[in-house]
Amino acid sequence: MNTNQTEKSIGIVNPKTLGFDQPLLLDSGVTLESYEICYETYGTLNQDKTNAILICHALSGDHHAAGYYDLKDKKPGWWDNCIGPGKPVDTNKFFVVCPNNLGGCGGSTGPLSANPLSGRSYGPDFPIVTVRDWVESQARLADKLEIESWAAVMGGSLGGMQALQWTIDYPKRIHNAIVIAAAPKLSTQNIAFNEISRQAIMADKNFHEGRYTEYNIVPSHGLKLARMIGHVTYLSDGGLHARFGRDRLENNARFGFNVEFEIESYLRYQAESFVERFDANTYLLMTRSLDYFDPAQNNNNDLTLTLAQTSAKFLVISFSSDWRFAPSRSQEIVRALTDCEKDVTYSEIKSEFGHDSFLLPIPDYHRLLHAYLGKI
Amino acid sequence: MNTNQTEKSIGIVNPKTLGFDQPLLLDSGVTLESYEICYETYGTLNQDKTNAILICHALSGDHHAAGYYDLKDKKPGWWDNCIGPGKPVDTNKFFVVCPNNLGGCGGSTGPLSANPLSGRSYGPDFPIVTVRDWVESQARLADKLEIESWAAVMGGSLGGMQALQWTIDYPKRIHNAIVIAAAPKLSTQNIAFNEISRQAIMADKNFHEGRYTEYNIVPSHGLKLARMIGHVTYLSDGGLHARFGRDRLENNARFGFNVEFEIESYLRYQAESFVERFDANTYLLMTRSLDYFDPAQNNNNDLTLTLAQTSAKFLVISFSSDWRFAPSRSQEIVRALTDCEKDVTYSEIKSEFGHDSFLLPIPDYHRLLHAYLGKI
Repeated sequence: MNTNQTEKSIGIVNPKTLGFDQPLLLDSGVTLESYEICYETYGTLNQDKTNAILICHALSGDHHAAGYYDLKDKKPGWWDNCIGPGKPVDTNKFFVVCPNNLGGCGGSTGPLSANPLSGRSYGPDFPIVTVRDWVESQARLADKLEIESWAAVMGGSLGGMQALQWTIDYPKRIHNAIVIAAAPKLSTQNIAFNEISRQAIMADKNFHEGRYTEYNIVPSHGLKLARMIGHVTYLSDGGLHARFGRDRLENNARFGFNVEFEIESYLRYQAESFVERFDANTYLLMTRSLDYFDPAQNNNNDLTLTLAQTSAKFLVISFSSDWRFAPSRSQEIVRALTDCEKDVTYSEIKSEFGHDSFLLPIPDYHRLLHAYLGKI
Repeated sequence: MNTNQTEKSIGIVNPKTLGFDQPLLLDSGVTLESYEICYETYGTLNQDKTNAILICHALSGDHHAAGYYDLKDKKPGWWDNCIGPGKPVDTNKFFVVCPNNLGGCGGSTGPLSANPLSGRSYGPDFPIVTVRDWVESQARLADKLEIESWAAVMGGSLGGMQALQWTIDYPKRIHNAIVIAAAPKLSTQNIAFNEISRQAIMADKNFHEGRYTEYNIVPSHGLKLARMIGHVTYLSDGGLHARFGRDRLENNARFGFNVEFEIESYLRYQAESFVERFDANTYLLMTRSLDYFDPAQNNNNDLTLTLAQTSAKFLVISFSSDWRFAPSRSQEIVRALTDCEKDVTYSEIKSEFGHDSFLLPIPDYHRLLHAYLGKI
């Protein structure tokens, strides 16, 4: 990082880890006897403990949402543009908590962790975790941090689904839910793309039924394909066109199957760097959790009835070019909330960056977050 | 087939094969010394030879467009709903020719054929063929069939691109071009999906750099993934929702990565059946040909200038829910044609079936084809 970046950023941060010995009964029926949650915090908890914000991460995210680990880091946390002093999630005002989800690969207990029953890593034996399970584990983290209620719970994509689940499961412990680029449940097309990604990973010859770490290898081809599918669907057709068009790499051989178009080079690069930082079993778990998210299913598919029990205020945000979680999906949430007369603000932000917009410092988007959080 | 189907269909058909000894210089600079074209014909060529229609197939198609090979066949050719007695492409009136593209796997010379230079199958040594190469090979087929000019050349998707290329390369030999669900060139997103499909095939451990037939194996996992990606992108979100929703298979285990949702089962089934009939090297070739199609690139990217030299009449058709080759892409062709004052009819057909609509007997679509072809 350079001096300019340091000034705007929360600066050097350190992840922390807390152990939990109280068994966690998961949605699947499996009990996790004990586990650890890795998390980061930014800013200071006030005396009344009323200024805490929980950040929930998406499929490929982790607990490192803001700041740098080391002066030599090239990149800060994944939402550093949004979290920090003077930023929309202002660390001069709020105490921000961002945990790595259970089943993740950033430090919380997940497939890469040692399974106390076998001594070897969980791998494919790590149980499927759901959005409800994450909310429960986050509530226990809040208990340990002595945070009775969150000023806000917020996140994009799968993170937005967690914020929504919080309002249902712990209505008294969340004052504001900021649900960004999310949906009340996946569409058939969403599930289809997830299924193809899982098939890509599981068909890799190095997958070894999920026990690849025991073979000192990773199913990199499959994970790369999954990431490429994700990447193309998280961006918009227009955004890809604006950035790459049909531009070609100079000097590369024509009439073959190697890289010729810039977009091919970009996808391969993104896939390579993803494999270095992400675990394939976690990818499987996260996509399944997305598939399963459907809070209204136990209420006869009535989202209004499901959200009627909530008491948080809502800010729902969508992005115009997001076709994976289109504005119409956010509007389903908004409609259900207005039908049960909840306090909801909705905005569709104009952006050409597709689903990935939620990670970007789009001025109208950040102004909206700033204004909303400023009033809390 | 049952009696009812026989009555509506052209009935039993037989593929034919013609050999070509005149070397074909391809766009890539490679010369194909000799090759065979496998094709089918339906109906009767009239004495003046003015009633011939050329059908161009898309990525996964072949020369078997209509009729049955055997009374026991469960399915007719891929466009049987459109081609036959009394159908939009009326075989009582027209003589219909449908060849398998060079590089294909249906019978024309392609990667599965023996390479005369080596004695073994071409495999990855089969040269990349372009839309222009196909048009040239189809023109030579027309010569052998003594068809001086086509009453119409028509096709959907990659087939529509061939129809468009015909108007540019052989303006005097085509009277009508019917360009369905096509585009004047692929978008960045289109290329990206093709690249991911190729990566899936080439990363398969059984690909063996394209020489898999020599190992008596096929890269089935990769080809299945490619087909699944294609399938999801050829359908629309709404169409998938209407057909599958979030329905689950009964009795299937929950909380795992096996099939649970109907859409997962459907994708796996479609992929399995595709692998049985299609060659992976051909899939690579076809997607590359799609990537390369860009007839305006040699005219300073000026499509109007490119199409100014044409003399055919045009019917351009798009489908409302097609997001892989959206109506706006067809409209680019229409705009260029109107800008150079060509005779063009355009229609966007309302359909929820996405890109695959061009294969379906949608009443408004077939009525339009019927009316247009009726006036030829």
